[in-house]
Amino acid sequence: MQVKLHGDERIDQLYSKGIQIIQSKEVFSFSLDAVLLADFVQTTGHKTKQVVDMCAGNGAVGLFLSEKTAAHITMIEIQPRLADMAQRSIELNGLGSQIDVVNDDLKNASKYVKKDSVDIVACNPPYFVNYETSEKNPNKYLAIARHEIMTNLDEIVNSAAGLLKMNAKLFMVYRPDRLTDLFVALRTHRLEPKRLKFVRPRLGENANMVLVEAIKDGKPNGLKAERDIITYDGNEYTDEVKKMLYGTDK
Amino acid sequence: MQVKLHGDERIDQLYSKGIQIIQSKEVFSFSLDAVLLADFVQTTGHKTKQVVDMCAGNGAVGLFLSEKTAAHITMIEIQPRLADMAQRSIELNGLGSQIDVVNDDLKNASKYVKKDSVDIVACNPPYFVNYETSEKNPNKYLAIARHEIMTNLDEIVNSAAGLLKMNAKLFMVYRPDRLTDLFVALRTHRLEPKRLKFVRPRLGENANMVLVEAIKDGKPNGLKAERDIITYDGNEYTDEVKKMLYGTDK
Repeated sequence: MQVKLHGDERIDQLYSKGIQIIQSKEVFSFSLDAVLLADFVQTTGHKTKQVVDMCAGNGAVGLFLSEKTAAHITMIEIQPRLADMAQRSIELNGLGSQIDVVNDDLKNASKYVKKDSVDIVACNPPYFVNYETSEKNPNKYLAIARHEIMTNLDEIVNSAAGLLKMNAKLFMVYRPDRLTDLFVALRTHRLEPKRLKFVRPRLGENANMVLVEAIKDGKPNGLKAERDIITYDGNEYTDEVKKMLYGTDK
Repeated sequence: MQVKLHGDERIDQLYSKGIQIIQSKEVFSFSLDAVLLADFVQTTGHKTKQVVDMCAGNGAVGLFLSEKTAAHITMIEIQPRLADMAQRSIELNGLGSQIDVVNDDLKNASKYVKKDSVDIVACNPPYFVNYETSEKNPNKYLAIARHEIMTNLDEIVNSAAGLLKMNAKLFMVYRPDRLTDLFVALRTHRLEPKRLKFVRPRLGENANMVLVEAIKDGKPNGLKAERDIITYDGNEYTDEVKKMLYGTDK
């Protein structure tokens, strides 16, 4: 399948999956966060029918998930240019019948996806609070993807809670720095954290990412703090991360 | 120094410190939690003047801390028998001028220790919610130490917040299972989590304990997810834990 590329765009392949993704340094490129999140998501065979990828960016997480589930996937992305990149990547991979893209604010999600109908929400949101004093990327695309300019954690969690069925699951990748914000927002919106996994650049270092699974209307507590993921061993990716990226640990 | 022992009591020594502690299988024995908590507490030299050990049990945490700080230490313990054990251990170690024991409910803590006056609160609280259906230890002493029968997490965190100075620190050991409860209670009472450390029985296993440091009126977020503590390597304690217990990793 041929798709049109803009001047700043290139096509990257995630070798562990058959997926090709349109990337752009100027606009948006997926990074390890997306790969770790897609790996962390647990599907439940045929029971998984509706998946939503919130804050979808160029669609990396949703595209990766298409290899884990036959469910319908809706990507929601507020930036038109990114939503368009995601749409073209879907076409590039011939996944138009499984995935669609909504280019709108998360607040309007229930216009496109029925409330209480979704089995899995995956979300790689902007990580940084948009303080007036925050240093933001002068590139507007990247600033919106990283800072809470167009949305914020509470809105995101509230939207996810609205779409999910009872006992259905939200999977998020976030920064440990804001884990308290995340847990408070989840509890507030009746999403109970059940699995937590830190990602550390190297063994013995502070975590730089955290993966969280929360269940809608889950009983309080029962959180499992699972083993860490370590990204690097020396200057190389660890076998675990190599496997996610290349499909083999060699 | 000679102290009177009841029939069920013995004296244990923590070899990494010079401390002897009166223990009783029938009533209360400190365990690794107390050692890990005391190790996790960071004092700040002469600036640390007032320390409170809440839910003190037989006084293990406060006794261990006496080797880290010259500050005055107040132990608060609601069970008379345990408070008495702690008092006799203080005498056994000749620490009567540094440590005192309050045998009362945490709710009354400010009768004994001035509000907004404490530099460090350390707390190894009961871990388990007291559901009517919870299976509790038939031994009343142990049941109260483990289940939220006489107090609960919100009351504990509220009492700690009341005693601490602005920017002073609470150190707690808890169960990962209830980390959301803990973070929500801390945020509610203006104690901001700043350090988190999981303890795993073995490398790659789910955590069974968590250590948290929170700062009173600290700015939101900025949580550091520090490297894990691993308890066992095979059937032996790891070097790190041996060092806490025996003062050497040999």
